[in-house]
Amino acid sequence: MESRTLEVRTGHAPAIVDLTPEVVAFCHGRGDGLCHVFVPHATAGLAIIEVGAGSERDLWTAVDGLLPRDDRWVHRHGSLGHGADHLLPAFVAPSLSVPVDDGVPALGTWQSIVLVDPNRDNPVRRVRLSFLAG
Amino acid sequence: MESRTLEVRTGHAPAIVDLTPEVVAFCHGRGDGLCHVFVPHATAGLAIIEVGAGSERDLWTAVDGLLPRDDRWVHRHGSLGHGADHLLPAFVAPSLSVPVDDGVPALGTWQSIVLVDPNRDNPVRRVRLSFLAG
Amino acid sequence: MESRTLEVRTGHAPAIVDLTPEVVAFCHGRGDGLCHVFVPHATAGLAIIEVGAGSERDLWTAVDGLLPRDDRWVHRHGSLGHGADHLLPAFVAPSLSVPVDDGVPALGTWQSIVLVDPNRDNPVRRVRLSFLAG
Repeated sequence: MESRTLEVRTGHAPAIVDLTPEVVAFCHGRGDGLCHVFVPHATAGLAIIEVGAGSERDLWTAVDGLLPRDDRWVHRHGSLGHGADHLLPAFVAPSLSVPVDDGVPALGTWQSIVLVDPNRDNPVRRVRLSFLAG
Repeated sequence: MESRTLEVRTGHAPAIVDLTPEVVAFCHGRGDGLCHVFVPHATAGLAIIEVGAGSERDLWTAVDGLLPRDDRWVHRHGSLGHGADHLLPAFVAPSLSVPVDDGVPALGTWQSIVLVDPNRDNPVRRVRLSFLAG
Repeated sequence: MESRTLEVRTGHAPAIVDLTPEVVAFCHGRGDGLCHVFVPHATAGLAIIEVGAGSERDLWTAVDGLLPRDDRWVHRHGSLGHGADHLLPAFVAPSLSVPVDDGVPALGTWQSIVLVDPNRDNPVRRVRLSFLAG
């Protein structure tokens, strides 16, 4: 299994980072198979959405509705509402996979693979890419 | 890696379409491995739920609560509330996989693999099936 | 493909059960690859979260907000609000996978793989582990 670990700078604000170029580069030349993406952090997830048309901001609106950043959470440390960050991966999971045809991820036209990181306290994240030959 | 692309007619209303018969047919005769299901669209997802007992309607109730179809979304074009459709895949992801034993998906008795398509504007969808031999 | 089926006692209350020790034991000695985890039940899901710091209770708070346990659901049998249990897997999916390096799941420090079972009516659950060599 071929693997690569990306280091992603997410800064000190909630961040949605497009990983598609890195995934495309990683798959290049590898033939047919599955590209598996994994985030080894407990307060971030992965999604496949359209980017650049407003859905990034909309996603935070939806996440804030589902997981309000207030003092309701038992798990509390760091910023107010950080307990919400710990729930994000239950709904926006940290593992996904995409078919790859002749080294090219078979994403739809409007699909981008993004890191969803609500966490204000960890400015650098890792993302693990793995290729399973089919 | 063996693959097949299904074309699914979802029409002009929100649709939950049971893909289990197609997945079963695709896996038949393939031995042990994983069946990966992927939707190459930015406004649809996949779920494994029970069908035929009301959960399809209930799922729209829950989705409408999480992602109301109104003018709150930055991403707006097409029908009112279409920005919500663009968020669905962040919560109901477009990739999943199921173990396959001797050509038979190892689904539980009440599990069906369904396409979840809230989009009123795209009447035909593709679903990609891939088999990774174990 | 190597597989193992766990039997997990969840009892008659909503349960979040840490499966990490079983996943670690299953992967031990298997080299590089992907560990796939699957729940063959229609009213349970899988998540990767931190355990032991309150997020288990917080997750039920969030689930109860998204899927209230009342009589709004069309799918109804068993306990009041059981229709909500049938929607959980649409949001907390029953399939996930984790990279494995030399027999060790590449989880982050604070990540645990948990079974999320809101169902009060089924005290015993199965979880299927599969290893795909890379």
